[in-house]
Amino acid sequence: MKGFKKLTPLSEAIHSLLKLLTHRIRDVEVVEISDAPGRVCGENVYAPIDSPAYDRSAVDGYAVIAEDTFGAAPTNPIELKLIGRIDAGYNSLKLPALKPGHAIEIMTGAAIPPGSNAVVPAEHAKKRGEIVEVYSQVHPYQNISRRGEDYSRGELVLEKGQIVKPWHIGALASLGLHELKVVRKARVAILSTGDELIELGQPLKPGKIYNSTKPMLKALLSVYGAEPIDLGLVGDDLDLIKKKVSEGLDHADAIIVTGGTSIGERDLVPEAISDLSDFMIHGLAIRPGKPTGFAISSGKPIFMLSGFPVAALIGFRVLVIPALEKMLGCRFDPPPRIRGRLTRRIASPPGIRTYARVRIYREDDEILVEPLRVTGSGILSTLTRGNGLLVIPENVEGYDEGEEVEVEILQPIHAGGEYQG
Amino acid sequence: MKGFKKLTPLSEAIHSLLKLLTHRIRDVEVVEISDAPGRVCGENVYAPIDSPAYDRSAVDGYAVIAEDTFGAAPTNPIELKLIGRIDAGYNSLKLPALKPGHAIEIMTGAAIPPGSNAVVPAEHAKKRGEIVEVYSQVHPYQNISRRGEDYSRGELVLEKGQIVKPWHIGALASLGLHELKVVRKARVAILSTGDELIELGQPLKPGKIYNSTKPMLKALLSVYGAEPIDLGLVGDDLDLIKKKVSEGLDHADAIIVTGGTSIGERDLVPEAISDLSDFMIHGLAIRPGKPTGFAISSGKPIFMLSGFPVAALIGFRVLVIPALEKMLGCRFDPPPRIRGRLTRRIASPPGIRTYARVRIYREDDEILVEPLRVTGSGILSTLTRGNGLLVIPENVEGYDEGEEVEVEILQPIHAGGEYQG
Repeated sequence: MKGFKKLTPLSEAIHSLLKLLTHRIRDVEVVEISDAPGRVCGENVYAPIDSPAYDRSAVDGYAVIAEDTFGAAPTNPIELKLIGRIDAGYNSLKLPALKPGHAIEIMTGAAIPPGSNAVVPAEHAKKRGEIVEVYSQVHPYQNISRRGEDYSRGELVLEKGQIVKPWHIGALASLGLHELKVVRKARVAILSTGDELIELGQPLKPGKIYNSTKPMLKALLSVYGAEPIDLGLVGDDLDLIKKKVSEGLDHADAIIVTGGTSIGERDLVPEAISDLSDFMIHGLAIRPGKPTGFAISSGKPIFMLSGFPVAALIGFRVLVIPALEKMLGCRFDPPPRIRGRLTRRIASPPGIRTYARVRIYREDDEILVEPLRVTGSGILSTLTRGNGLLVIPENVEGYDEGEEVEVEILQPIHAGGEYQG
Repeated sequence: MKGFKKLTPLSEAIHSLLKLLTHRIRDVEVVEISDAPGRVCGENVYAPIDSPAYDRSAVDGYAVIAEDTFGAAPTNPIELKLIGRIDAGYNSLKLPALKPGHAIEIMTGAAIPPGSNAVVPAEHAKKRGEIVEVYSQVHPYQNISRRGEDYSRGELVLEKGQIVKPWHIGALASLGLHELKVVRKARVAILSTGDELIELGQPLKPGKIYNSTKPMLKALLSVYGAEPIDLGLVGDDLDLIKKKVSEGLDHADAIIVTGGTSIGERDLVPEAISDLSDFMIHGLAIRPGKPTGFAISSGKPIFMLSGFPVAALIGFRVLVIPALEKMLGCRFDPPPRIRGRLTRRIASPPGIRTYARVRIYREDDEILVEPLRVTGSGILSTLTRGNGLLVIPENVEGYDEGEEVEVEILQPIHAGGEYQG
C-alpha cells in the first residue's frame, strides 16, 4: 500500500495550480438583467447616458435663482413670486426661463426649470397664496442633483469579472440598460469512483455506502455559479477512469474525480490521471483532505478529491474555488467570519493546515467557539451539528483554551432571534 | 408639504414589526435534494438509518482482534496469519468470524469482518506472503468508524428553518434521502409609484427617469430566496395605489411600495396604506432612507421604501430581511465583514443610524476604509464605485480619521488576486 511520501504545502499547490491553469472561459452570453445577479459580468459597461439625465431637485421645495435668496433669514424673509408648480415627471425643460424674483414649487426628483439654479427646501419657506417667503439663503446648485452626477455618459459602471449584485442591476436599469453580457457558466464534470458506492435511490446493500459526496459537490458547484456535469460512477477500474476523465475533458472546463485515491497497492485515480496530464500534485498538507490533489491537462484542471464528503468539501474550498476564479476572471465573496473565544484547547500537527469544525455560540454577550471532536473525515455530522470552521495554519500547533480565534461562519449563530440591522 | 414630525428609531421600528407581523409561511413543498440548496428546510429530518450502516475501517490496513496485537512494537513484531482481503464495497458481513491469530487486509471504508474489533494501519505492519507482521498494538475499536457514529437512526439531522447548505445535501444523501420538504418561497409583491417613472425598454423622456428601484428589489428578493410579484407602476394616484396594494395583499405574503412617500401636500402612499392597515410607522431615524416605513394589514407587512435605489436598498435591509426571516422561520447568513482604518473623518447626525458607503482597499498589508462623498440618496454609483457599507449607530456622531471600524463587504476587496484559503 502506498502512503504519501511527501505532502505538498497548500500555498505551494495553489501557486502551481494558478500558474499552470491556462484555460480561460471567455464565451459570453446576453441575459436580461433580472437573470444577471450572481453571474460574472462579461463586459465593461459604460454609461450610455448621463444619470441623472438633467439637473433635478434633491428635495421638495422651491426652484429659485440662488442670488435672489442671498441674505434671507428667519428674521429677514425674502418674498418671491410663486409662478407655478413642477411635479415629478413633468417636462420642465420646455418652460420659459425663470425670471429674477420668481419661484416655482418643485417636487423631489423633478427637473429644475431653465433659469433656476437652486432649490429652497419646503421647510425653509412658507407659501402665502402667490407669494413664497424664503427664510434661508441657498447657494448656486444647492439641493440640486447635477446632470451626470451619478453616472456621466461614457463612465465605467460595471467591470468585466465582477459578480453581478442587486445594486448593479439598479445601476444598469437607471441607465436604461436591460440586458448584460455575462460569462457563460463554468462546466465542471464530476466522476465518482469506488466499488463501495451506490447512487441515491437504490437500496443500501451490506458493505456499500450511498454516494453523498457527488450531490454535495453538485450543490457546491451551483452555489458558486458553475454547471455540474455528471460523469457517473465507476468502480475501481483504471481504464474506465481514464476513459471517463478523457471524455470529460472534451466537454468540461474542469474535472473533479472523487475517491479511489489509494486502493490497495495502486493509487488508481492518480495513476489514471497521471497518464492524461502534464503536471500533478497528489497529497496535500491539509487535514482533512490529505489525499487531495490536482493535475493539469492541456491547461485544464483535474481535481482529485476525497470520497469522504467533509474532506471533499475542504478540497473543493482550497483548490476548486480559486481555479474557478481564475478561469472565470472573477472573485467570489469572502465567507462571513467572527471572532470568538475557544472553549477548549485544539491541537494541529506541525506543517499541516487544519480545517477544524467548530460550534459557534453566544453566551452572555460573548462569542464562544467549541471545537468538535471528530474521528474521521467522513463525519458529516460535524458540519451539521457545528456551524463554523476554524483554520489552523501550518506554523501553528494549535490554540489554547480561552484564546481568541477567528472562525468562518457556516450557518448563522442563532436560528431565529433578533436581526442585527 | 409634510415633513416628518417624528422619526422612529430603527430598533423600535423593528421591534414593532416583528411583534405585529403574525403572518407565517407554513406551506411546504417536496423538492429533490439537488434543488434544495438555499431553500428553507420545512421539516425536522431524522436519520432513517445508522450512518455508517456498519462498523467500517477508517484506514487502509489489517482487520484484527485487538487483543492479538497487545505488546506489538517495532522491536517486537507480532505475526498474524493473513487470510484474505476486503475491498471497499465488499459484503464482509457474510464472512465467517475472524479467528484469533488471523488478520484480513482491509481498505478504507470497508465493513470490518465479524469477529474483528480493530484495524492496524498499513504503515504499522508489513505483509510477508501469508503472514503480516504487526509493529504496534491497537486497542479495541481503534481505526474503526462505528456504526451510527456519524448519524444514529432517529437522530435529528436537519432542523426546520435552517437554510439548506451543500453539506446538508451531503448529509441527506449519506442517509439515502433524495427528497426534502422545504418551505415555499415567500411571495413579495412590488408596486412602484411616481409620475416621473418609466419602465425599462421605453425611450427616456424629459423629466422622466427609469424605474431602477424595482429591478434592484426584484434581484434582492431573488437573492434572499423570495419570489417577486410585479404589481406594476402607478402614478401618484391615491385610489389606484390603494386598489393595487389591496389586490397584492390577497396573493402575496408581503408588499413593497416604493416612492410617493411625500408628494406635495399629501403623503400619498402612507395615506393609501394607512386606510388599509392596522398599524403604521412612517419615517425612520436612518440615513439614507428617512421616508421608510411599514404598516401591518391582517398580520402581513406592507413596506414603504424610498423610490431612490440606495435608500430602498437600506430600507430592504433593515425591514424586509428581518420580516422575511420571521415569516419563513429562518435566519439568513450574516454578510461578510472586515475591520479597517478610516482614511478620513466621517460624521453622522446624533440619533440617526447612518449607512455610509465606503471603499475598502488594501495598502501595504493594511485594510483602509474610505468614506465616499455623496450628495443624495439616489446616487447608485456610491455602491458600484465603493465596495462596502459602514453602519454608524445612533449614539455615535461619527468616527475620526485613523479610527478602526468594522465594515460590511459588498464586493470583494480585490477583483482577482490571490485566494485566501
